[in-house]
Amino acid sequence: MKNIQIKELKEYLNKEIEIQGFVDNIRNLQYVQFIILRDGTGKVQITIEKSEESNKELVEIVDNLTLESTVKIKGKLLDSPKVKLNGMEIIPTSIEVTSKSDGELPIDIKKKDNSLRETRLDWRFLDLRREDNKLLFECQTYIEHLMREYWYSNDYMEIHTPKISASSAESGAEMFKLDYFGQKACLSQSPQFYKQMAMSAGFNKVFEIGPVFRAENSHTSYHATEIEMVDCEISWINSYEDVIDEEEAWIKYVFNGLKEKYGEKIKELFNVEVSDTTNKFPRITFEEVKKIMKEKYKYDGEKEDDLDRHEEELICKYAKKEYKSDFVFVTNFPYSARSFYVMKDDNGITQTYDLLFKGIEITSGAQREHRYDVLEKQIKEKGIDPKELQFYLDFFKYGCPPHGGFGVGLARILMRIFEIDNIREATFIYRGPTRLNP
Amino acid sequence: MKNIQIKELKEYLNKEIEIQGFVDNIRNLQYVQFIILRDGTGKVQITIEKSEESNKELVEIVDNLTLESTVKIKGKLLDSPKVKLNGMEIIPTSIEVTSKSDGELPIDIKKKDNSLRETRLDWRFLDLRREDNKLLFECQTYIEHLMREYWYSNDYMEIHTPKISASSAESGAEMFKLDYFGQKACLSQSPQFYKQMAMSAGFNKVFEIGPVFRAENSHTSYHATEIEMVDCEISWINSYEDVIDEEEAWIKYVFNGLKEKYGEKIKELFNVEVSDTTNKFPRITFEEVKKIMKEKYKYDGEKEDDLDRHEEELICKYAKKEYKSDFVFVTNFPYSARSFYVMKDDNGITQTYDLLFKGIEITSGAQREHRYDVLEKQIKEKGIDPKELQFYLDFFKYGCPPHGGFGVGLARILMRIFEIDNIREATFIYRGPTRLNP
Repeated sequence: MKNIQIKELKEYLNKEIEIQGFVDNIRNLQYVQFIILRDGTGKVQITIEKSEESNKELVEIVDNLTLESTVKIKGKLLDSPKVKLNGMEIIPTSIEVTSKSDGELPIDIKKKDNSLRETRLDWRFLDLRREDNKLLFECQTYIEHLMREYWYSNDYMEIHTPKISASSAESGAEMFKLDYFGQKACLSQSPQFYKQMAMSAGFNKVFEIGPVFRAENSHTSYHATEIEMVDCEISWINSYEDVIDEEEAWIKYVFNGLKEKYGEKIKELFNVEVSDTTNKFPRITFEEVKKIMKEKYKYDGEKEDDLDRHEEELICKYAKKEYKSDFVFVTNFPYSARSFYVMKDDNGITQTYDLLFKGIEITSGAQREHRYDVLEKQIKEKGIDPKELQFYLDFFKYGCPPHGGFGVGLARILMRIFEIDNIREATFIYRGPTRLNP
Repeated sequence: MKNIQIKELKEYLNKEIEIQGFVDNIRNLQYVQFIILRDGTGKVQITIEKSEESNKELVEIVDNLTLESTVKIKGKLLDSPKVKLNGMEIIPTSIEVTSKSDGELPIDIKKKDNSLRETRLDWRFLDLRREDNKLLFECQTYIEHLMREYWYSNDYMEIHTPKISASSAESGAEMFKLDYFGQKACLSQSPQFYKQMAMSAGFNKVFEIGPVFRAENSHTSYHATEIEMVDCEISWINSYEDVIDEEEAWIKYVFNGLKEKYGEKIKELFNVEVSDTTNKFPRITFEEVKKIMKEKYKYDGEKEDDLDRHEEELICKYAKKEYKSDFVFVTNFPYSARSFYVMKDDNGITQTYDLLFKGIEITSGAQREHRYDVLEKQIKEKGIDPKELQFYLDFFKYGCPPHGGFGVGLARILMRIFEIDNIREATFIYRGPTRLNP
C-alpha cells in the first residue's frame, strides 16, 4: 500500500489507508488515546478506543510511545465533524513505531524563545522542525525557483565555477588556505573572476547559486564564513544602468511571485508583509546620498568613500518616505571603496552600484572593465602586481564583450524579507568562526 | 538605442539597428569588406563598400580589425537573398571596437583537434567559444532546469549543505584539510550526512546541486577533485525500491525533455542520439549480474563484492540487448562494498543500488538506516568509533523518518549523454591533482 500524505487525506474518506509521520502530540485519557500525527504536509488525529478488545495491542504501543517518534499507521479514515483538526480522524488497525525518540528533547521545538539560540543551533535538526523554520526554507526554495525561472526565460546559462583556486578572487581579503597536493590553494571568496571568464567565453548571460568562503573572524549578526551567493553576469551592455534595469526586473519578478504564493502565510507566522515592488526603485548617486545625510539628517558618516550602517538605514528610510520603496539603488561609489575590476567613465566616475533593502545592502553590482590595457592599469593603481593576476588578465586578451553583473547573499535577502535579526537563523546550517558543528 | 540579438534580427528588416558581437571572420576584398559577427545567438554579415566616400573611416577600422575582437555596430539591416548567411546583411554607419583581440590565438577555436587538450584547458575561455562547447553547457543548463522542474512539482525543498565541516562525510576516504581559526576542518566529500539531517528535520524531500571535494590523486579520464553533485533524499519510504522508482521517473522526465528540445542539435554537433527512456529500466540484483557475467560472458570480475569497469560495460550491453534500455539498475550490493549508513534487511541484504548508463555507474542510491541502535551497531561493525560520528548519530535520536536517496555526478551524466571520453571536457573548469588553473 502506498503512503498517503496528510494534505491529500480528504480524497480518502471512509477508506483503508496507510500513513506515516512524527508523533506531534499524545493524549492518553481514561477511555481513549489520541495521537496527533505530523508529516510535513499537515496534521491529523488518530483515535484509539481503549475499551475495544481488538485494540489491546495498540493501546500498549501508545502507552510506550514518545513524542517525536515516527510511526506508520494503517487504518480507516473517518469523517468526524466534531474533531477540531480537519474534521477527520483515523481509526487505526496497526501502529508500527519506525523510529523511537528519546523522551526528553534538548530544546523546546514548539516555542522558539524557550531555548537559547546557541543551544538551538547545536540541535539545528530539531530547531528546523518548527513550523516557522519549515516555512522559511520552503520560501527559500521558492525564491530560488523564481530567480531561476526569470533567468531561464531570459536565456541565461547556469555555470558552476571552481571553489578551489590557485589565486585569490580579490587580493588582500581573508581567505581559507589549503594544501592541494603540495601546491598552495585557497577557497573561493567570490565567483567574480570566473563569471567574467564566462563572458569572455561568449556565454552572454550566466548565473550561479553556490557557496563562497570568507575567513573573516567576524562575530556580527550578518557575517558567516560560508555563504550561499547568488550571482549573475551579462554581456553586451551599454552601461551599468543595463545591469540595474536587469536586477530591478528580476527582483520584482521574485518578490511578486513570493508575495502571491506565500504572502499570507508569512504574514501569519512572521508578522511581516512581503514588500510591494510596484514602484520603480529610486536610483540615487553616492554624492546625492551624502548630501541628503548632511542636509536632511544632519549626519556625517564614518567613511568618506562608503556608507556606514546608519547611513544605509537612513537612505532606506528616505526611499520609503519619498518613493514608497523598500528598495533603493545607490550608484557611482568612489573608486577608493571599490575593486580594480570596476569600470570608470571618462571622468573617473565608477560605473558601480549597491542595492539596499530595508536598511541594509544586499547587492553590489557594476559594469566591469573589460579592456585589457585599462584593466592592467587599474590593477597597478590599486597596488597589485599584475603578474599575480595574469591568468585573470588573460581573459581579456582575445576580445571580451562589455559586461557587468551583481551578487546577492541568499541569507541576507531572507533575513530582510522575514525580518530575522540574525544570519544564523536564516541559514540551513550556519558556519562562523566558533561554529563548525553540526 | 537598445542592442538587438542576432536571433531577433528578422523583426528589424530595413530598420536602423545597433548590434554587438565578436568578429568571427573578416574578408577584406578589393572592392568590399565583409565581417561576420557572432553574438552567441547567431551570426550575421556586415558589408562595407570600399568605394563609398562616406565609408572611408569604416574601411580603415576594418583594415586594422583582428579576429575575435568585439565591436558595436550601428547600421541598416537589409533583406539580401543573395547572402548565404540568413539572407540578410547590415550596412554599417559606425563601427566601434569595444575590445581588441591580440592577433594570433593560442588555440584553434574553430577546429577542436588542431590543439592539444591540455593547451585547450589552459585557454579554457577560448576553448569554450566553440559551438559544440556552447551547446554542451546550454544543455547542462537545461538538464539542471528539468531536474529542478521535476523536484519543484513534486514538493522537494532545496537545501545548501555546508562544505566546511569538523568531521569527514565518510571515514577513511581522502579529504582536503584546512585550518579553520585554529581548528581542524575539512571540505565536504558528500552532502550525505546533511541531507539525512534534513530528513530528521522533517523536510520530507530535499535536493541539492552543489560542489563536493575529493583529494584523490587520480589521473583517470573520469575523476576530478571538485565535482558538481546532484543529490536528493526522500522520507517516509517503505523500501529502497521507492527510491529507485523516484529516480527512474526523474531520469525519464529529464531525458524526454532534453531529447525534445536539444535532440536534433546534439545529433548534429556530437553525432549522438539522446537515449530513449520509454522502456522500464531493468532491475537486476548484484547476484544475478555476477551469474550473467559468468554464464553469458565467461568473465570473472576483479572484485567479489563490487563490479569492475568491464562488468559495468557488459551488464549495460546486456540491458541494451535484452531490455532495449541504456539504463540498468543493479541492486543489493554486498555490505562489504557499501557504507555503514545503508540499510540491511533481516537477511543482511543491503537495500542499495547503482544506476548504470551506457557502460558506467552514474548513481549510487539506497535506503538508509534510520534507527539509532542499528546505525550505531553498523558503525562499530565497520570498525569506526561511534564517538567520531556522534554529531551524525544524534540526528537519529529524536525520531527520524525512514528515508533513502541517491547522488549523481553532473559531469558524469553529461559525459555519457554526449559520449565525451574525458571529464575534463564535460566540466566548465576542471580541477585535478595537476590542474588548479585557470
